[in-house]
Amino acid sequence: MDPAFRFSHPIEVRYADLDPQRHVNHAKYLTYMEIARAQYLKQIGLWNGVDFDRLGVIVASASCSFLRPILYGMPVRVGVRTAKLGTKSLRMDYVLEDAQDGAVLATGSTVLVGYDYVQMVSIAIPGDWRARLEEFEGI
Amino acid sequence: MDPAFRFSHPIEVRYADLDPQRHVNHAKYLTYMEIARAQYLKQIGLWNGVDFDRLGVIVASASCSFLRPILYGMPVRVGVRTAKLGTKSLRMDYVLEDAQDGAVLATGSTVLVGYDYVQMVSIAIPGDWRARLEEFEGI
Amino acid sequence: MDPAFRFSHPIEVRYADLDPQRHVNHAKYLTYMEIARAQYLKQIGLWNGVDFDRLGVIVASASCSFLRPILYGMPVRVGVRTAKLGTKSLRMDYVLEDAQDGAVLATGSTVLVGYDYVQMVSIAIPGDWRARLEEFEGI
Amino acid sequence: MDPAFRFSHPIEVRYADLDPQRHVNHAKYLTYMEIARAQYLKQIGLWNGVDFDRLGVIVASASCSFLRPILYGMPVRVGVRTAKLGTKSLRMDYVLEDAQDGAVLATGSTVLVGYDYVQMVSIAIPGDWRARLEEFEGI
Repeated sequence: MDPAFRFSHPIEVRYADLDPQRHVNHAKYLTYMEIARAQYLKQIGLWNGVDFDRLGVIVASASCSFLRPILYGMPVRVGVRTAKLGTKSLRMDYVLEDAQDGAVLATGSTVLVGYDYVQMVSIAIPGDWRARLEEFEGI
Repeated sequence: MDPAFRFSHPIEVRYADLDPQRHVNHAKYLTYMEIARAQYLKQIGLWNGVDFDRLGVIVASASCSFLRPILYGMPVRVGVRTAKLGTKSLRMDYVLEDAQDGAVLATGSTVLVGYDYVQMVSIAIPGDWRARLEEFEGI
Repeated sequence: MDPAFRFSHPIEVRYADLDPQRHVNHAKYLTYMEIARAQYLKQIGLWNGVDFDRLGVIVASASCSFLRPILYGMPVRVGVRTAKLGTKSLRMDYVLEDAQDGAVLATGSTVLVGYDYVQMVSIAIPGDWRARLEEFEGI
Repeated sequence: MDPAFRFSHPIEVRYADLDPQRHVNHAKYLTYMEIARAQYLKQIGLWNGVDFDRLGVIVASASCSFLRPILYGMPVRVGVRTAKLGTKSLRMDYVLEDAQDGAVLATGSTVLVGYDYVQMVSIAIPGDWRARLEEFEGI
């Protein structure tokens, strides 16, 4: 995997992820990125994995390029990194790879905006988030 | 809805579409676009709704801007249109609206590539597709 | 539909509900029942469709008999009724039908237990629930 | 885990498996059982994991008792076993456990009927299936 990705997470393709074309449905790629993003936030210590009201960010936009079909039984690994860190938002990039041969299956990106789920309003990216992301990513 | 969209399809938000943030999960927006796209292809006569090996196109890339949360009980309507028609690919644009007040909830786009699901190879967009899409969209 | 069902709700089969066998995945039948159950609770006035902490019941068990495959494009209608009303739990029965020809596609049942989602403890079925369910179902 | 289960498979709870009640949605329990069942069939050599037209069985009925909520981050393990082997059908039983402390989260059961997905007709359980299941389960 591109060493720019300092974090990656394995995904088990589920039978129910497949659609009638007999490959993983394209919307599930966003789910795979979401699984890895949540683990990334937990590992860096930005989310405790328990309190959904303190998730801290909301997805403002997402994009994905589907390069190869993902088939049942294929060992998938998702790389995540914070590629850009702004005042109110940050951009995370993703790569989905075949964990066995390293073939790139998809690339994606999400813009996340700081968000207070209790008040339901956008907020600035918290200072401790900035510090930890900069430290982890070396940016 | 923007009159550029000559086709739209209503979506019923399901309880199971919601995530712990208590709004529709962001990956489901791609599913909502997929629901509308399949109906669009059926209405224009490009797909019979039965033979999945003759679906004719594969999603090469997708993007979505999430403008407002979609809540349970919100009547959603998805507009679909073919915005660009190339030799090997076409771009469909989408708008998700609150069917009651017309508020735009999300906008999205997918690039579809001609695809033969039996041979599993890319193909040119078939001539009859071009003709029907040009006729329907007036392009 | 069997007149014992005083409530029914239409379901649009989504492309993403299908699995590689090219029919609706069996787990989605529970989702179809859930969609109809939530609408039933809203219609009878037991849930406002907004406050998830006041849903009032939790699923304790579920069962389903899959009688015919559900295919893409098939118009499905789900009947729901409260078949048994106890002190701490109630049993809802379901029938999934082809809305066009009335063919029974599946039958199912769920036991729901009174539940306080804030305290996370089981509670008795509230008195007003009993009254409204008895009135609606004529039991 | 009860030693009657000679096969088990770990499941990673996904954020997207959760519903607004902030636990795993009840329909996903069937999906968790399906994940483990597919792996069981692969391990015993009854399905190659590739050819969906040769899956050999169809789900005729399913039931599940939901004993404890499954939360995000909980390590789940699903036990599967063939509990009854008839001429035309077989019954598989399941147990969902917390892999850390062994607490039973749910129990379930599915009846599977021999099925030819190409001809779309029920068939007898093939002789080699019987032999391998009897051998693996010691029945």
